[in-house]
Amino acid sequence: MRRPEKYTPVPVRETGVDIINIKGIEDIGYAQQDSILLNALVPEENTHCRQGLYFQDGQRRVDYVLTYHIKKQSSSRRHSSRLTDNAFTRSLRRGRVPPPKGDPEVGAQEHSLHYHEDDKRFCRDEFESSLMEMGLELEKDEHTKTPGVGFVKIHAPWHVLCREAEFMKLKMPTKKVYEVKQGSNLVEKINTFITKLTEPLHPNVEENRIQNVKHLSYPFSREKQHFLLANGVYMAAYPLHDLLYEEWASYSVFYKYQPVGLIRKYFGEKIGLYFAWLGVYTQMLIPASLVGVIVFLYGCATVDDDIPSMEICDKRNNITMCPLCDRACSYWKLITACGTARASHLFDNPATVFFSIFMALWAAMFMEHWKRRQMRLNYIWDLTGFEDEEPEKVKLTCKDRLPAYMTNLVMMLFMIGVTFAIVFGVIVYRISTTSALYMSSNPTTRSNVRLTVKTTAAIINLVVILILDEVYGAVARWLTILEVPKTDKSFEERLIFKTFILKFVNAFTPIIYIAFFRGRLVGRPGSYLYVFESYRMEECAHGGCLMELCIQLSITMLGKQLIQNNLFEIGIPKLKKLIRYIKSKRRAFQEEEQDKKLQRYETDHFLEPFAGLTPEYMEMIIQFGFVTLFVASFPLAPLFALLNNIIEIRLDAKKFVVELRRPIAARAKDIGIWYNILRGISKVAVIINAFVISFTSDFIPRLVYQYMYSPDGSMHGFVNHTLSYFNVSDFQEGKDPLEPTDLEYKVEICRYKDYREPPWSPTPYEISKEFWTVLAVKLAFVIVFQNVVMLMSDVVDWIIPDIPKDISVQIHKEKILMVELFMKEEQGKMQTLESKDSCNNHSPVPRPRSFPNSHTND
Amino acid sequence: MRRPEKYTPVPVRETGVDIINIKGIEDIGYAQQDSILLNALVPEENTHCRQGLYFQDGQRRVDYVLTYHIKKQSSSRRHSSRLTDNAFTRSLRRGRVPPPKGDPEVGAQEHSLHYHEDDKRFCRDEFESSLMEMGLELEKDEHTKTPGVGFVKIHAPWHVLCREAEFMKLKMPTKKVYEVKQGSNLVEKINTFITKLTEPLHPNVEENRIQNVKHLSYPFSREKQHFLLANGVYMAAYPLHDLLYEEWASYSVFYKYQPVGLIRKYFGEKIGLYFAWLGVYTQMLIPASLVGVIVFLYGCATVDDDIPSMEICDKRNNITMCPLCDRACSYWKLITACGTARASHLFDNPATVFFSIFMALWAAMFMEHWKRRQMRLNYIWDLTGFEDEEPEKVKLTCKDRLPAYMTNLVMMLFMIGVTFAIVFGVIVYRISTTSALYMSSNPTTRSNVRLTVKTTAAIINLVVILILDEVYGAVARWLTILEVPKTDKSFEERLIFKTFILKFVNAFTPIIYIAFFRGRLVGRPGSYLYVFESYRMEECAHGGCLMELCIQLSITMLGKQLIQNNLFEIGIPKLKKLIRYIKSKRRAFQEEEQDKKLQRYETDHFLEPFAGLTPEYMEMIIQFGFVTLFVASFPLAPLFALLNNIIEIRLDAKKFVVELRRPIAARAKDIGIWYNILRGISKVAVIINAFVISFTSDFIPRLVYQYMYSPDGSMHGFVNHTLSYFNVSDFQEGKDPLEPTDLEYKVEICRYKDYREPPWSPTPYEISKEFWTVLAVKLAFVIVFQNVVMLMSDVVDWIIPDIPKDISVQIHKEKILMVELFMKEEQGKMQTLESKDSCNNHSPVPRPRSFPNSHTND
Repeated sequence: MRRPEKYTPVPVRETGVDIINIKGIEDIGYAQQDSILLNALVPEENTHCRQGLYFQDGQRRVDYVLTYHIKKQSSSRRHSSRLTDNAFTRSLRRGRVPPPKGDPEVGAQEHSLHYHEDDKRFCRDEFESSLMEMGLELEKDEHTKTPGVGFVKIHAPWHVLCREAEFMKLKMPTKKVYEVKQGSNLVEKINTFITKLTEPLHPNVEENRIQNVKHLSYPFSREKQHFLLANGVYMAAYPLHDLLYEEWASYSVFYKYQPVGLIRKYFGEKIGLYFAWLGVYTQMLIPASLVGVIVFLYGCATVDDDIPSMEICDKRNNITMCPLCDRACSYWKLITACGTARASHLFDNPATVFFSIFMALWAAMFMEHWKRRQMRLNYIWDLTGFEDEEPEKVKLTCKDRLPAYMTNLVMMLFMIGVTFAIVFGVIVYRISTTSALYMSSNPTTRSNVRLTVKTTAAIINLVVILILDEVYGAVARWLTILEVPKTDKSFEERLIFKTFILKFVNAFTPIIYIAFFRGRLVGRPGSYLYVFESYRMEECAHGGCLMELCIQLSITMLGKQLIQNNLFEIGIPKLKKLIRYIKSKRRAFQEEEQDKKLQRYETDHFLEPFAGLTPEYMEMIIQFGFVTLFVASFPLAPLFALLNNIIEIRLDAKKFVVELRRPIAARAKDIGIWYNILRGISKVAVIINAFVISFTSDFIPRLVYQYMYSPDGSMHGFVNHTLSYFNVSDFQEGKDPLEPTDLEYKVEICRYKDYREPPWSPTPYEISKEFWTVLAVKLAFVIVFQNVVMLMSDVVDWIIPDIPKDISVQIHKEKILMVELFMKEEQGKMQTLESKDSCNNHSPVPRPRSFPNSHTND
Repeated sequence: MRRPEKYTPVPVRETGVDIINIKGIEDIGYAQQDSILLNALVPEENTHCRQGLYFQDGQRRVDYVLTYHIKKQSSSRRHSSRLTDNAFTRSLRRGRVPPPKGDPEVGAQEHSLHYHEDDKRFCRDEFESSLMEMGLELEKDEHTKTPGVGFVKIHAPWHVLCREAEFMKLKMPTKKVYEVKQGSNLVEKINTFITKLTEPLHPNVEENRIQNVKHLSYPFSREKQHFLLANGVYMAAYPLHDLLYEEWASYSVFYKYQPVGLIRKYFGEKIGLYFAWLGVYTQMLIPASLVGVIVFLYGCATVDDDIPSMEICDKRNNITMCPLCDRACSYWKLITACGTARASHLFDNPATVFFSIFMALWAAMFMEHWKRRQMRLNYIWDLTGFEDEEPEKVKLTCKDRLPAYMTNLVMMLFMIGVTFAIVFGVIVYRISTTSALYMSSNPTTRSNVRLTVKTTAAIINLVVILILDEVYGAVARWLTILEVPKTDKSFEERLIFKTFILKFVNAFTPIIYIAFFRGRLVGRPGSYLYVFESYRMEECAHGGCLMELCIQLSITMLGKQLIQNNLFEIGIPKLKKLIRYIKSKRRAFQEEEQDKKLQRYETDHFLEPFAGLTPEYMEMIIQFGFVTLFVASFPLAPLFALLNNIIEIRLDAKKFVVELRRPIAARAKDIGIWYNILRGISKVAVIINAFVISFTSDFIPRLVYQYMYSPDGSMHGFVNHTLSYFNVSDFQEGKDPLEPTDLEYKVEICRYKDYREPPWSPTPYEISKEFWTVLAVKLAFVIVFQNVVMLMSDVVDWIIPDIPKDISVQIHKEKILMVELFMKEEQGKMQTLESKDSCNNHSPVPRPRSFPNSHTND
């Protein structure tokens, strides 16, 4: 056993602990001699940084780096240290090593506020000596070319890794290799053909080539190591790192599969799973966008056969409509809505009903497909049997927690209220501006009213969403800290959940308003509904609100994707890196020299720290919402999402490889709470689509007309049927149009879109029987649609097995092989034992002593 | 190592292999010296059977018995042998021992048909020698007092058990004992108080007393056995077996909890889980029946305040109703429906809406509660980490399977069609008998028409259900055998699924007819709907069909429970036992003598073999359906179920302990497919209850009347509002009543229950606006109810953690203790190793050879 090298404690000039990077325990059994430790990825940087990867002796690798500020100037900025699942943080949790002070994550900040420099140094010393007690080896470096920063490099020796591996029940590959056989001859031939066909789609890395041989793996056990561990194969199993840069983080390979195995080896399972998930999602978007485009094209092709829009565009149907606003607006002819009506048909045709059902099943298929993929990865990555366990860090009673929970609830409701208020504000803006502009004396202003108002309102909406998104992220974090969750995992989950709720409400409230409320709360001519007693509520253009919903959806979706993803995700990290670099330069003495000979661990210091996967997932989940929730009104959403994601994958890859400090490799079996959120969205999507089809589109009224009211079973007369009559003499005083003679004739009866009794009925302007009939059919459609789609989703869920068949066959095969291996080993041991029985008494193979029956006779 | 005792093969006079019983591998680590092997439960039988529990040497226990027929007389009856999960069947599957021929379960039957006696003997010899090769020890006994039957007794020695335990990764308790601490002082006090309070409810067995000490457990490993195995504690941990008989299988302890731990130890986890589940279900029924009774009492208490039934019973409202059948029936006065209307109120009041919501949440709670209980049992029984693995026995391509699948589909549809046809037949019987009896000249017959027809129809229905239940069970089994499922588990699941579908449809079709179709397809006066052109469809009594639904539900539920459970479950096994015993007696020579000195394994031979848990679960699941599906119409269902189950538990217990051969102890982590079926039923229950409330009960029409049509916002005038007018001159020819002057006055206008236009409207007898309004509200209610309840269920599912908190804390604690134990052990070993290094070379503790870096420096 080697004893850890001692060193003299550093002087009193530092503040906190900043952990940059780790070579995780996960790499055990894979690469014991490779050169990756820090961000060793970019090829040209490799050569002059190489020596920074090892201790001074050039032999022991740097597995983890801690940095701290040396007190020379006032250090204003602090890095919060990040510790996730790895050998030594687990030891901290287990309580064997006292952490610097409380939880390192939160602790570092408080730390600098409350402790004198001496205390900090003392804490650090204590912490470091505990690390050494556990067998870790440390080397300090305060005289780097980066002034003001001290580095503690940590090396984990083999025996420590082994011990931790056994506790974590990591699986190790055994010597035993077996061939993974394909099914029958025909299946094999087809597979070979498919493999050849998709050859150019696969990344150019070695892992794809050796698919039909697999090592048996077994939970790591030091006792069984001697006959299990297959040493010879490791060198070959680990590919070069430049590959990751060339075959993944590059736009030129956008059409290829991702080298998920490599990503996992370099970044750990958690990030590997994210990219695998993103890959599956993007792949699944391909059929969805294809069908979406077909549905859209169907709409384009049939637009000329649509009888209702033909009727609207027909000059012979001389229908006079009631004015759209009080006083300023005049009567108008239905034929002016011809363009809108034709455009509506693109998104409002029977094919969209089919598409909604298709997308609900698509979502179910996607969830299933991902479950299977995850299972496969779990198997390939030997994660079966791995369980994430975290201790509770905080013990609080319900009474302690109550105030925090109440604050949370109130704040969440308040924030949701703020969103509603803002949406309402935008509505009022739109109404008031419209009526103000209509009043304008300038005729060009008046003619462009609709366009001006719509555009400005949409932009305001988008800007508000983007700003609130950032605010809500911060609020959610603050609220979660207030809650003091018991474990890191619980913290993350609660944070994600809150952020999700807020961002989701933020993104979808305006859309829900347009889909379900706009144009529904207008009242009727002669008895309109007013906001603030003077502004009439908005109406939709003729042909349903579906068109406006569609416009709003595309603006929000495209705007969010372009601005948030590209501007925020690429621009801001670059900017931050630049700022950090400039700051440090200003502070330095020999700038030129330093620039050239920076050690690897020094250059990494200037990179942005890894902030977790939450923003990446969140972005995709909100996008998933756009793709599934209102797909009935916007069949092109999957296509937009697909185009965005193809860029997104490579963008994220670049960011992870070059722009960020290397994240700690964390183990994970699944994507955690995100899966539940996805399931939740798919469920909500079914009911929302049901409502969009029945209430936003004209699908049901058409159906009802055709089968219940049409005299000849065709759609002829539908437009007339949906328009009620209004006697202009029934206008309230001061609400009738100022210029009633805009048209050439005197208007006595105008029409409006609603199912109401005509003025000459015994109950004028009452809701008519047709209204109730249509409503009943609409509601029945919702029930049928929801239950049928839910049933179909359940059936999809049920008939697709969660574990792919080949994987379950292989797992079973491995079990048999393992049993055989042990049986053979046992027989060999038995023989050895019989010959040298006396020599072996500190660990005797148990005699069947507890079963006396089997010994006393025969 | 002992060598298995050899014996001379038996002569050529036997036919098949019949396995009676096993002492499962599960008992390892618990009781190595106890006397249970076969059905050793009933105390008085214990003494003279004791010697049958051991081999001739009186030392080795009989762990399993195989029986076969010795060819002396023509053996007509065959026992199929039953092999489920245990050490040696698993070996069979693993392919190490060639089974007698194919799958023993199915094989035994085919066997006798195709093989000559010689072949059978040869097969048996080969099989037995394979067993011996695996280390099992055998003893044959052909000269028992039961003639014609040969017994092979099998004993599994300790080392074989150890090997199998390691392969199965059984957990063993370690020496380490730790105290399970309760929370704070207050919590502890409360717990103590509750424990004291519920003291009499707990069975009088030892396991409940030592709750706060638990042994650490660890997957069985022969290498670690020496320092892990805690020998001293075993004797105390195993209680006596009479306890099971006295404290469980007795009606006198019906109010107590079940000794689930004991049941599991004796019968294995699978049966243990069944009884635990039954216990949880019964326990959960207590609050449900309580609330149900309260709801019923609320109905009773408010019956006099119900305005609609007051109006019906009011003589001043002289309402003349249209005749209920053609020709024979006359006009009738609404007041005659007074009794029914009042009775309807008992089940049709706003409280039932609340009760439906309550029961939907109850079902969600039940599922959650069971998940937690299962988790707790998994932990206590050390099943965490256990995975059931079965190989595929049959390899068939899709093409091979297609015919079987098609047959399955067609047969299932056919059987469901048969059910529908029978229900339709009963309806026709009811209609035709009613009209025939009305035609009768006997006045007493005519006055009892309703009662006679209803009673006979209900009995016919019940009998048909009972008969079809048996038929469907057989059909499902036949269809599943046709399918040739890949594994035993898959066989069981498919069988259960099919049986469930058929029995479910069988039980609920008549009820669904009454709830949703009866009285809805009657047409209207003057234009009735006819079956076979002469029989008018049935109408419900005034006050909705809810009352009839309620009657049908209680008859089916009570009838099924009384007849199926008690008669079939108790009576038939007793009968079968008697027959088997008599048959054997007739065959024997010295009856008297044999009767007294039968060995344990001989008496067990006369018991009914264990037929699996499927019938027990099925019965309970169908009952669960009655409790949840139509609970809106029958709030007393939970109470009936509770009363039945209290008896059912003890009845099943008695059956398992005394009436059946001891089942093979099978391991199981959960209740398998039953859980999914339960979930499915709870989901369907939500939508069905939504429909029952809106369409079967009068809840929505009342609501609509009160808030939309009532002149004063009260319910006054509701009855009048729901009745449409009919002009008697509009009757079709030959359909008008024969005796129109049954009442004292001439009827010109009669009333019927529907929302239609009056005769004097421009569109007489058309469906009115009120109809569509009510329909729309009904449908809206269904949507709101379904989604709100589903959301609430999901919330319940989400806020109740699947793993009880104390269990997760304990699991974490155990992990830490285990790590500490290993660390200590390792340190001790290290020291030993350093001193006696040379002596220990057949199994060297690995030096860190694969990590050269850590060795070359310092």
